[in-house]
Amino acid sequence: MPRESNLKRREPTTDFEAPELMFAELDGLLGYLLRRAQGAMHRDFMAAVSDFGLTQKQAAALWLIQANGGVSQVEVAAALGMDRATMMAVTDRLEDRGYVIRKRSSVDRRRQELYLTPSGQSTLRKCKTRIAEHEEKFRAMFTAPELAALLEALKKFQTPV
Amino acid sequence: MPRESNLKRREPTTDFEAPELMFAELDGLLGYLLRRAQGAMHRDFMAAVSDFGLTQKQAAALWLIQANGGVSQVEVAAALGMDRATMMAVTDRLEDRGYVIRKRSSVDRRRQELYLTPSGQSTLRKCKTRIAEHEEKFRAMFTAPELAALLEALKKFQTPV
Repeated sequence: MPRESNLKRREPTTDFEAPELMFAELDGLLGYLLRRAQGAMHRDFMAAVSDFGLTQKQAAALWLIQANGGVSQVEVAAALGMDRATMMAVTDRLEDRGYVIRKRSSVDRRRQELYLTPSGQSTLRKCKTRIAEHEEKFRAMFTAPELAALLEALKKFQTPV
Repeated sequence: MPRESNLKRREPTTDFEAPELMFAELDGLLGYLLRRAQGAMHRDFMAAVSDFGLTQKQAAALWLIQANGGVSQVEVAAALGMDRATMMAVTDRLEDRGYVIRKRSSVDRRRQELYLTPSGQSTLRKCKTRIAEHEEKFRAMFTAPELAALLEALKKFQTPV
């Protein structure tokens, strides 16, 4: 695309039809495409789990606590890449809703362990079914090798650059 | 991974070293990996443009307004997948900072056109240099064919499913 296109003046349109915008280099940016993709998938996720009123972060925390009963808040935060304040808010919210309990460790009194309540277990189980359907909708856009390559590529971002 | 592992009780640790958490199926989820990847890239973006105090959305709006001088707020919102309220807030902020002006169209009085000010142009130019460096840091994790496949894959999410 020629450099001049960036500064090209569009003719004003008198109707409100969606115009063909000049995206210039924007739609070639990895960061931009990643944000748009995450936005699209996030909107669908929220719709899929709307009955449960869980955010992506809350669902991921429930998921990790179930798989690691007795895990500490700090450990879940580290594993999910959240800061302590965010994780504290997530745990508070999950505790308020009766999905999670905090329990002081009998081995180390400084340590607070997190467990799912039966209600948390049951909600997570139902939620996982919805998440599986939501996942499948997006996975279906790709062939198996394309999907494998995409998952591999996304995992590389987890490593600090 | 055997089913029991999900419910496996971890031995409490008395030190605070990062444990090996059981991610169960979580780290195989496309949505989870996409959110983590976007989070990593977003943190780096914010650090890269911190001198300019721009968010990803504000930078993308500046970028589109530059490439499409006279574009309307509604058109930019549609192109960037933002709702009207968010785009209104973004434009207000960019106008407050003297980067963007709203101008009533001489052709259609109902239409408000957006333009970059010289200060907006200059800020966007400097910002683009930083964004290019930030992009390159992530692109460098991939070979050329891997990157092309990743960009193609991410574009598929833009289409409503």
